[in-house]
Amino acid sequence: MPDYESLWSELGIDLKPHAELLEALLPLYQEVYLSQKNRPRGMEYFDFVVGEIHGLRVQELNDFRRQGGKVVGTFCIYVPEELVLAAGGVYVGLCAGVEVGTAQVEAVLPRNICPLIKSFMGFKLARLCPYFESCDLLVGETTCDGKKKTFEILADYAPVHVMEVPQKKEAPDQELWLAEINKLVARLEELTGKKVTYESLREAIRQLNAKRRALRRLAELRRADPPPISGLDALLIFQIAFYDDVERFTEKVNALCDELEERVRQGVGVVPPGTPRLLVTGTPMAIPNWKLPHLAETSGAVIVAEELCTGYRYFQNLTEEEGGSLEELLVNVARRHLAPHCACFTPNGGRLEDIERLIQEYRVDGVISYVLSFCDPYAVEHYQVEKFLKAKGVPVLKVETDYSMQDAGQLKTRIEAFVEMLRQKT
Amino acid sequence: MPDYESLWSELGIDLKPHAELLEALLPLYQEVYLSQKNRPRGMEYFDFVVGEIHGLRVQELNDFRRQGGKVVGTFCIYVPEELVLAAGGVYVGLCAGVEVGTAQVEAVLPRNICPLIKSFMGFKLARLCPYFESCDLLVGETTCDGKKKTFEILADYAPVHVMEVPQKKEAPDQELWLAEINKLVARLEELTGKKVTYESLREAIRQLNAKRRALRRLAELRRADPPPISGLDALLIFQIAFYDDVERFTEKVNALCDELEERVRQGVGVVPPGTPRLLVTGTPMAIPNWKLPHLAETSGAVIVAEELCTGYRYFQNLTEEEGGSLEELLVNVARRHLAPHCACFTPNGGRLEDIERLIQEYRVDGVISYVLSFCDPYAVEHYQVEKFLKAKGVPVLKVETDYSMQDAGQLKTRIEAFVEMLRQKT
Repeated sequence: MPDYESLWSELGIDLKPHAELLEALLPLYQEVYLSQKNRPRGMEYFDFVVGEIHGLRVQELNDFRRQGGKVVGTFCIYVPEELVLAAGGVYVGLCAGVEVGTAQVEAVLPRNICPLIKSFMGFKLARLCPYFESCDLLVGETTCDGKKKTFEILADYAPVHVMEVPQKKEAPDQELWLAEINKLVARLEELTGKKVTYESLREAIRQLNAKRRALRRLAELRRADPPPISGLDALLIFQIAFYDDVERFTEKVNALCDELEERVRQGVGVVPPGTPRLLVTGTPMAIPNWKLPHLAETSGAVIVAEELCTGYRYFQNLTEEEGGSLEELLVNVARRHLAPHCACFTPNGGRLEDIERLIQEYRVDGVISYVLSFCDPYAVEHYQVEKFLKAKGVPVLKVETDYSMQDAGQLKTRIEAFVEMLRQKT
Repeated sequence: MPDYESLWSELGIDLKPHAELLEALLPLYQEVYLSQKNRPRGMEYFDFVVGEIHGLRVQELNDFRRQGGKVVGTFCIYVPEELVLAAGGVYVGLCAGVEVGTAQVEAVLPRNICPLIKSFMGFKLARLCPYFESCDLLVGETTCDGKKKTFEILADYAPVHVMEVPQKKEAPDQELWLAEINKLVARLEELTGKKVTYESLREAIRQLNAKRRALRRLAELRRADPPPISGLDALLIFQIAFYDDVERFTEKVNALCDELEERVRQGVGVVPPGTPRLLVTGTPMAIPNWKLPHLAETSGAVIVAEELCTGYRYFQNLTEEEGGSLEELLVNVARRHLAPHCACFTPNGGRLEDIERLIQEYRVDGVISYVLSFCDPYAVEHYQVEKFLKAKGVPVLKVETDYSMQDAGQLKTRIEAFVEMLRQKT
C-alpha cells in the first residue's frame, strides 16, 4: 500500500491504533478471502480495494474535497444516494463491522447495545475511520432505537442530519417520507451550494440504477448450481458498493459478471454441484464482519443469497426513471427508498415474501437467520421468520452473535450440524 | 379478598400460578408499603385497591362486558384514553412490573430484551393477568423497537391495534399522528358499535382532565418540605391511575389531597424536614415495580417527583377543552397526546427542560436516572440527561436494573452513598 500517513494525519486519524487495525485486517482478509478456491479473476479489483481500504478511496474523496466537493456519510439503505449525487456530492458508507474504540464508546453508550452501533461510534470517538473524518455531513435515520438515539450523541462530534424513516408504509407514512426526502434535498443543497435539478437527479438515478442492475445481475448468476462465485465474495462486493465510486464500481461488477456468465456456461463453480445452498437473512454485515459467511462456507455449504441490507435489500428495487418534473422524480426516489422490507416496519410481511421468493429462485436448502446481539428489530422478528419457514418446511438456524470471535468454535459446530442435516435431506 | 376464583376461571386464568403470584405480591406490599411511617389516612382506598388487585376492578370490567360493554387494554400514555371513553368503552392499563411466565416468553422472544416487554408477554402467554383476559382489544404503539415488534407476536394471541407514534414532532409528524388518532376512532367505533360524537368526546376530555388535575394537585403538594406523602405512595397512585374507574379515582385522589393540604399547613410530613429530595427520571414503573423507590426511601431520602410515564409525563398536559366541532376536539386530543417527552422522540430536548423545571419547582437535591435493562431509548438518552445535569451542577446517579431482586444489595449500597453525598452537600 502506498504511504497515506500524511493524509490520515491531516484527517486527524489516531495513527498508531489505526496501523494496528489495518495490520489485523489484512491477515484476516488473507485467511478468509484469499484462501478460497476457484475464485473468479474479476475479484482482483475488489481484493485491490480491500488492500487499499483506507487509502486510495480516501485519497479520492479528499482530492474531491480540495476542489470544493462535499462528502456525505450514510449508515443505511434508506438514505437516498441519488440525492447526494444529484446535489453534486459524493456519498460513502461508514465504518463498522469490527470491535473498535470500545473503551471510548462505553463512556458514552450503554454496554449492552448492538455491536454495529458500538462499532461506528467507536470508529468516530477513537478517530480510526478516515471515511468518517472525510465527511462534511453524516446522514442518520430512525430505523432503530439504538441508532436513533446514538445519532444525537454523534451530533456532538460531527454535523448530523437525521431522516425520519416511518414505521408503516401507509398513505400518511408516504407523505411523511416525501417530506423527509425534501428536507434532505434542502440540507444537501445548502451543504454543496448546488441545486438538485431535474437533469442532475435524472442522471443520478440513471447511475444508481445501473449499479443496482449490475448487482442484480451478479446476484442472479448465483442461481446456477454450482454457483460461479462464493457468498463471501458476493458479500464483499455488496459491502464495497457502499463506498466505491459508482461508475467504476458498476463497470467492475459488470466485468466480473461477464466472467461469471462464462463460468456458468462451462459449469465451473466455487463448490461441487449439489453443495447445500444457504440463504442468510437478518441484520446487515459491514466490512470486516465476515464471521458467519466464513464459518458457513468452510462447513461444506455455499451462500447463494442474502436477504440483508448488505445484499438483496440494497439492490432489489430500481428507482422509476420516468417523470415529467423534479417533483415527480423526487416522488419516485421516495417510493423506491421506502420499498425494502427492513424489520423497522410493522407489520413486515413483505420481508417474508422476499425470503420465500429468494428460496425458490435460488433453490435454497436452508436459511440462516442472522441476528446481531441486542438488535431488537431482527431478534424479535426472527420469531415470524422461523414460524413462516417452518410452515413451509424450510430448515432454519438462528445465529445470534456479535463482532468478537469468542463464539466461533461453538457457532462452527452448530453450523456444521445444520449443513450436515441439509446434506442428508437433499 | 372475596372469592373471585370462578371469575378468573371463566376468564381462562391459570389458577395455581396465579394464586402463587398474588401470595407473593401481598407480603411484598406489606413490606414495602404498609411498613411506611406517617402515611396519610387517604391511602386506605389505594391499599384496598391493591388488596383487591385482580378482584373487584376485574369484576366491574366483566359486569360491564356482560352488559355489552367493551374493554380496551393499553400499554402507553400516547394511547388517548379519551377516545376509548368517548366510544363508550373502558380502558385499562395492562400487567407488567414483575418477572412472570419467563419460560413461555423465552420461547417466542429473545432473552436479552426489556423486562417490561418480557413481563407483559409473560402475563399473556402464561394467562396470569385477568385484565389482559378481560380485554376486547389491545392498543399497542411503536414507541420502541421491542414493543413495536412484540405486538406483532401478541396479535397471534389477542386482537391488537397498533398506533404509529411518530419519532419527531414536526408538521408532517403531527399530520401522521392525527391520521393515527382518526384510525383509532374508527377501530373503537367498530368495536363498541357506538359513534364518537362531539358531546361524548367533550365529556371524556372533561373527565380525563379532571383526573389529570387531581394528579397534578397531588404532585404539587409534594413541593412542601417535608413532603406530606412518600414517593412510594405517589407512585402507587400514578400506577393505579391507569386502571381504576376514572371518576371514582379522581374523587379519591382529591379527598387525599384535602388531607395532604391540611398536613402541609400543619408542617406534617413523611420524613423530617431537610431530608434529601430526589427526582426519578427514566423508564416507567408498573405495579409491583417498586424496587428503586423502596431502596431510595429506606436510604434516608424522599422522592418528590417522577419524570416518568408513571408520573409527570402522564398528567403534565391537559387536553384543550374548547373546540367547535368533533374534528377540532380530535385535533386537541392529537396535540395533547404528542406533547409528553418520551425518549422515543429525536431530538428530545423537551425532556431536559421538564427535568430542569421539576428540579427547580420541587427543590430537588439529586436525580436518579432509572433505566430498565436493554431499554435503548432511555439507556442511550441517559447520556444527554447526565451531561445536562452535570452542566447545571445537579448530582445524578444512573441505576440500570431489571425486575429481579438479585442486585438489590448492590443498589442499596450505591443509593445510600449517593444520599449521603447529597446530605453533606445540602
